[in-house]
Amino acid sequence: MNQQLVEDLEKTIENIPNFPKEGIQFKDITPIFLNPQLYKDVIKDLSAFSRDKIDVVCGIESRGYLFGIAIAVALDVPFILIRKKGKLPPPFVGQKYDLEYGSAEIEMRTGQLQPGQRVLIHDDLLATGGTTEAAALLIEKQGGVVSQFSFLIALKDLAGEERLKKFNAEVHQILSY
Amino acid sequence: MNQQLVEDLEKTIENIPNFPKEGIQFKDITPIFLNPQLYKDVIKDLSAFSRDKIDVVCGIESRGYLFGIAIAVALDVPFILIRKKGKLPPPFVGQKYDLEYGSAEIEMRTGQLQPGQRVLIHDDLLATGGTTEAAALLIEKQGGVVSQFSFLIALKDLAGEERLKKFNAEVHQILSY
Repeated sequence: MNQQLVEDLEKTIENIPNFPKEGIQFKDITPIFLNPQLYKDVIKDLSAFSRDKIDVVCGIESRGYLFGIAIAVALDVPFILIRKKGKLPPPFVGQKYDLEYGSAEIEMRTGQLQPGQRVLIHDDLLATGGTTEAAALLIEKQGGVVSQFSFLIALKDLAGEERLKKFNAEVHQILSY
Repeated sequence: MNQQLVEDLEKTIENIPNFPKEGIQFKDITPIFLNPQLYKDVIKDLSAFSRDKIDVVCGIESRGYLFGIAIAVALDVPFILIRKKGKLPPPFVGQKYDLEYGSAEIEMRTGQLQPGQRVLIHDDLLATGGTTEAAALLIEKQGGVVSQFSFLIALKDLAGEERLKKFNAEVHQILSY
């Protein structure tokens, strides 16, 4: 664990009580992007975790793009966008998942992932793991190998990591709460 | 104009007829991210346009994040996220704008932009310019100076650039259609 990076991030991330609803403490990561050096330190940590272990990075819309693209560029591998339903033109592959109320769907363009490729799934935050699990199922549906998950933050109380265990992939986060 | 980059991008971007509706040809830029070298060439072009001209980059959710964050890091300046309504915790500043049917709103966290800062507003695509104009109004509302706009692609028929003229800012795009 990179103690200095953890401290720098804890000083930077803002804790917003009762957002998006009563009783939830929101972690606002946007101040990280005001500090290019801190951003680069985050990318250094996240790309070190994945170096030589993966063939492609998949990032989840939209905050997963902010670190995901830079991890891919640092490792010189392709970056594939996982988007919310309705934004990608056909042909695409989709995966539904349940929300607290109702359901949602994520999509990826067909043909961007090659069968057998080792995939890092990246997002900024691991909460209940619903979207991340759907992303992993979307990768497997196309013959990809879910090798790693990485996050800036994991919220331990919400048991997202338990939900991802079945993929037998490495999991890394810089901050845990 | 960087002719080689234009040619490489034209070979890479996919033209999808009749998406999102009949008669519209969609430009799918996602294949750019499969090619880290091409992505770096794009960032080199976009950051050269803004070097020493701006104090901060504002990127529009979500594809504006993919190039915007890298421009900011290349120029060693802060990156501020402009998000769609309801995603940022308070306090934030918002700006409404009209859509073909109805209206939308974009938001930025209060206090991230300093009065007097020279701003680059970046997005992947300039179409009618509605969202970009709203972003510029959002900057001015906070005392920022709209110095530059940059895009990967500008669709000339939709007259977005006309709409941005009132801001007296430099405009740059790599590809025009």
